[in-house]
Amino acid sequence: MIQFQPNLKSLKSYEAGKPIELVVREFGIDPDRVIKLGSNENPFGCAQTVIEAVRKEATKMSYYPDDSYSELKTALASKFDLTPDRIVPGNGSDQVLDFACRCVLSPGDSILINRITFAMYKIYALQCGAKIHSTETVPHDLNAFLDLAKSIRPKIVFLCTPSNPAGDALSKSEVYEFLRQLSPDTLVVIDAAYMEFANKKDPSKFIPAKEVTDLFPNVFYTGTFSKVYGLGGMRIGYGIGNGELISNIYKMRPPFSVANLSALAATEALKNESHVESYLENNRKEMKRYEKFAVEQNVEFIESYANFITLFARKRGKSSGEICGSLLKQGIILRDLKSYDLNAIRITIGRPEQNDRVLTALEREFN
Amino acid sequence: MIQFQPNLKSLKSYEAGKPIELVVREFGIDPDRVIKLGSNENPFGCAQTVIEAVRKEATKMSYYPDDSYSELKTALASKFDLTPDRIVPGNGSDQVLDFACRCVLSPGDSILINRITFAMYKIYALQCGAKIHSTETVPHDLNAFLDLAKSIRPKIVFLCTPSNPAGDALSKSEVYEFLRQLSPDTLVVIDAAYMEFANKKDPSKFIPAKEVTDLFPNVFYTGTFSKVYGLGGMRIGYGIGNGELISNIYKMRPPFSVANLSALAATEALKNESHVESYLENNRKEMKRYEKFAVEQNVEFIESYANFITLFARKRGKSSGEICGSLLKQGIILRDLKSYDLNAIRITIGRPEQNDRVLTALEREFN
Repeated sequence: MIQFQPNLKSLKSYEAGKPIELVVREFGIDPDRVIKLGSNENPFGCAQTVIEAVRKEATKMSYYPDDSYSELKTALASKFDLTPDRIVPGNGSDQVLDFACRCVLSPGDSILINRITFAMYKIYALQCGAKIHSTETVPHDLNAFLDLAKSIRPKIVFLCTPSNPAGDALSKSEVYEFLRQLSPDTLVVIDAAYMEFANKKDPSKFIPAKEVTDLFPNVFYTGTFSKVYGLGGMRIGYGIGNGELISNIYKMRPPFSVANLSALAATEALKNESHVESYLENNRKEMKRYEKFAVEQNVEFIESYANFITLFARKRGKSSGEICGSLLKQGIILRDLKSYDLNAIRITIGRPEQNDRVLTALEREFN
Repeated sequence: MIQFQPNLKSLKSYEAGKPIELVVREFGIDPDRVIKLGSNENPFGCAQTVIEAVRKEATKMSYYPDDSYSELKTALASKFDLTPDRIVPGNGSDQVLDFACRCVLSPGDSILINRITFAMYKIYALQCGAKIHSTETVPHDLNAFLDLAKSIRPKIVFLCTPSNPAGDALSKSEVYEFLRQLSPDTLVVIDAAYMEFANKKDPSKFIPAKEVTDLFPNVFYTGTFSKVYGLGGMRIGYGIGNGELISNIYKMRPPFSVANLSALAATEALKNESHVESYLENNRKEMKRYEKFAVEQNVEFIESYANFITLFARKRGKSSGEICGSLLKQGIILRDLKSYDLNAIRITIGRPEQNDRVLTALEREFN
């Protein structure tokens, strides 16, 4: 019998958001009637210019990607005002998070995460045989992080800001203060998957990748094309670091880690900031409708700096699972946060007409 | 200072085949004049039906993939005549090779590879802190593998058949005899990236995935869409196993590991076997031209069961590096095998008109 890594026994796989295909298969609903607001995708899709570029280059699928990813890295370098050698592309930011874990973690090492945070930090760390420590509050409490860091001496601290799946965000000043106090031996991953949304709502929450990695060489900043750029299906993310950190991260990168059409799509997406801007504007406006709904219905929610809002189910009403299940049968996919130990629902802010349907359906569930 | 994994110090990254973009950048050659026969891609590209399907679905790039990959797995299950739960998809077969390493290797463990073999086995194993042992001959010698396995007790043995970059292939009967004699505690990875070509040339070299994993639950069989299916840019591979092996491998798989357009392209490619068949037929015919050239020019070569041929440079003539460098300036990308410690050139068998140009250019180099 093959001996597998002992830590695999207790490892549960990530529970992905439900795809449209599943709703079609299970409930026989016309796919065009399904509203998918469970995975924080861009509800407008990517820019038409991106679609056209991909269609044009589809004849080149047989060629391996240019493994230098120089066009993508140059475009990203321009977005972040730094040199391309500080950027590592990945198969989603997921993959660069994995690089970070494997780069420093050995069995028995510790990581420190927020109580409510993106589930993959824990999974990648467990795959490395690491121990997981977490804070106790739903929003990030950096004082609690500092206290815990002193006693457990984590190899990695993960900050997710804006936080998924809660939606809260840290300010730049509190993050910098935290970084000044933390040991520089600790790798700090700043997962900025939703940073563009925070910047739109409140620039004091914006953490600039160049500045933070210039000031703190122990910071690895990660971003994605899956959210504001509308390319969740194409799997493109990136990490930004400095000096020795980025060169070590690169050693974990397999060749051709991003598909050629994906790298092309991302490069094209960066050229179309007006598509991004109009999505951000819709998100800001439509978010207010959900907040208004929550206030009017006396439903508890977390103020969100991202493209989703988290509503808590009532203690004496239907559970989050019941509400999500009921909406699913109507062809509306939301995310039940039960697996995060929250009796809450995460809703991606959709297009206006999608939100009409969701809010009408939710009103029935909460009353 | 962050402490990185100590094994990273000695780890060299994979040297990818040169992309067309590089030849355009460095030598200012019109990209349409560049012949890329350095990375064993399908020189005819993928089927037109695949291109059409991708163009049609390009509007869905914003949606995360269906993480069950049920359509792709069902299509692969039909190709291999087994159940979909025995298949794990990956971001290229590269990624499933990585899963296999991380699933069983701890620092200090050993792996056993052929002297000349795909470079990534070593890199993935080094990332896990493992020690690398290899045989001494260019073609696989399974008796040498068995002898070494007895003394070093490897956690993983990698067989690459047909072998990249040499081109030799093992027969099914010798592989089965080897597996019967090897300890069932050892994971055996059979990398079958080029298996379709071997099957076309000599069915005795064909190793059926279902049968081998039924008989030997310690076998992990890997395949790819990058070669015969012409989808190298899209990064889709797969692994096939049985029982506990495949369920443990699955624990290493991150969510959404294959892009949605990539999974779609692969599924469509499996529907178009006539495209594959005509490519295999071209490969068979055109391979003979290279063999004839080698015999006539008195150039040593390895009989190949794949879609490439390996020619040795003459001891007193130009080195493999000089020949490849000279052809590169003419816009012809071949693979210099110097990094594999061979004074040899690996040439992907191209379309007839590409091979005309390559053979003419090679004749000048060898004389």
